[in-house]
Amino acid sequence: MFETVTTLLDWLGVVVFAVTGALVASRKEMDIVGFALLGTATGIGGGTLRDVLLDQPVFWIREPAYLVACVLVSGVVFFTAHIPHSRYKMLLWLDAIGMALFAVSGAERAALAGANGIVAVAMGVVTATFGGIIRDLLGGEIPVILRREIYVTAALLGAATYETSTALGASREFGTVAGFALALLIRAAALQRGWSLPRYRPRPGARDE
Amino acid sequence: MFETVTTLLDWLGVVVFAVTGALVASRKEMDIVGFALLGTATGIGGGTLRDVLLDQPVFWIREPAYLVACVLVSGVVFFTAHIPHSRYKMLLWLDAIGMALFAVSGAERAALAGANGIVAVAMGVVTATFGGIIRDLLGGEIPVILRREIYVTAALLGAATYETSTALGASREFGTVAGFALALLIRAAALQRGWSLPRYRPRPGARDE
Amino acid sequence: MFETVTTLLDWLGVVVFAVTGALVASRKEMDIVGFALLGTATGIGGGTLRDVLLDQPVFWIREPAYLVACVLVSGVVFFTAHIPHSRYKMLLWLDAIGMALFAVSGAERAALAGANGIVAVAMGVVTATFGGIIRDLLGGEIPVILRREIYVTAALLGAATYETSTALGASREFGTVAGFALALLIRAAALQRGWSLPRYRPRPGARDE
Repeated sequence: MFETVTTLLDWLGVVVFAVTGALVASRKEMDIVGFALLGTATGIGGGTLRDVLLDQPVFWIREPAYLVACVLVSGVVFFTAHIPHSRYKMLLWLDAIGMALFAVSGAERAALAGANGIVAVAMGVVTATFGGIIRDLLGGEIPVILRREIYVTAALLGAATYETSTALGASREFGTVAGFALALLIRAAALQRGWSLPRYRPRPGARDE
Repeated sequence: MFETVTTLLDWLGVVVFAVTGALVASRKEMDIVGFALLGTATGIGGGTLRDVLLDQPVFWIREPAYLVACVLVSGVVFFTAHIPHSRYKMLLWLDAIGMALFAVSGAERAALAGANGIVAVAMGVVTATFGGIIRDLLGGEIPVILRREIYVTAALLGAATYETSTALGASREFGTVAGFALALLIRAAALQRGWSLPRYRPRPGARDE
Repeated sequence: MFETVTTLLDWLGVVVFAVTGALVASRKEMDIVGFALLGTATGIGGGTLRDVLLDQPVFWIREPAYLVACVLVSGVVFFTAHIPHSRYKMLLWLDAIGMALFAVSGAERAALAGANGIVAVAMGVVTATFGGIIRDLLGGEIPVILRREIYVTAALLGAATYETSTALGASREFGTVAGFALALLIRAAALQRGWSLPRYRPRPGARDE
């Protein structure tokens, strides 16, 4: 049963991230193969790095339906990306949902592979952010971690919530829902209200050369 | 015997891609070690990602002669890159040949490793494009998938041709030749005649903010 | 005993590279989570790629204390980066030390994993340079291999010194010290005196289009 829940999170995360990759392709006015490539790389990127680092079989090699889904979703976006009123807002919100899904599923998969709690949280962050990093590098957008609003923090806290609550004896179902909800809420607040952490400020007197 | 053919494709692809990496190094006026690094990374990049994803031993760790060949080839380019009349044209054509070679050999290696047909085609695309992506990222060129002419499509169709024809009972030799020829022809036509697929066009009325 | 020396090199290299990642975060005025992410990715990047390519367990998954150290070090830099008189000089010198440490430890780990001598030298270069490449890509700095002064050459000669001296019968302790010292000296001279290798120069008559 639980394997099904994790698999569901993975499926949702892959599809949602594939849409964001295809939306970036639409912003760059790529052709349909560019959509498929960027959508697929974004959808499977985070989980692929997670599996390679954990030395597990890569999930889409075991189950190629993920690839098919990414390609189909990218094709749908190619023909419908003009419909939403603001593509960029849609991109940001779907990216937030995908990030929250992968933060939890990344931590879960690492825990299932026997990883230590700290490693599981790190895997949550890796899974949640790497697809977006690939998308932004290949699509020529400003990488997510250079942007002002809270992003990685949300993934970190979501994964840590899953990890801590299950370590304290909560059910995996509870940890999943709590971690996902927290990550999404923090990122939503960051998007809506411009939440950001205090940034490093250069002090007068120090040179930066 | 067949192992020999696949190995030959790999060797040709590695050498041809190493030349393109060294040619980019010459465009950036790097020193000879920069040539060796960019030539080697471009030559072995695609096959390395393929092997890591398939959880096979990385080909140049099993056979270090690939590394030696990349370094030698890059050194030769350092001293001869001024000879061709147009370096950039040479780069594009060698890149086309390397892409067609790797599209087929990537699909083959994946099939030999027991991968599903869809995964094999994806591996053809990964092997054919990743070396060029590394080259363009490290060398500061516009990434290949953002360019206008057909590229990834050619790799995709070459790998799919190999995969479909062997699945339908054709010999691997036939699949190899047919897949290579198709990928190269499509890319050549794209370069010669500016072939491109229709691109996504923003519709009036939708905002992109 | 020797395992301890290699482990010590790894620890020093990880910490020193984490500081350089956090210093780049301070140049980009990131928040504290950005510091932690960039510091950690820089600190563990080279060793991670080395382990994945050699198909060894990733070192920080086996020993999560590396992750904790990177995060702590990045946090310290967040609060102290204004103290050094010139942050950029400090970044360059720490990067030189980390590069020299990883050039040797990368070659050692590869040799311990049974790799051929050429592969061991290549792994030294990969381990020494990949953390910095990630740092510069994510932080939006000019990648190290596009800069003018000798860098990769120093890593290459350090790793080759370790490899050759141990192959000729010298003790691993000797090879470690000699390789580290040579790599650091060459890079220090490059930084101090602007040492560089001759670059490729376009010849009149050849077009580059």
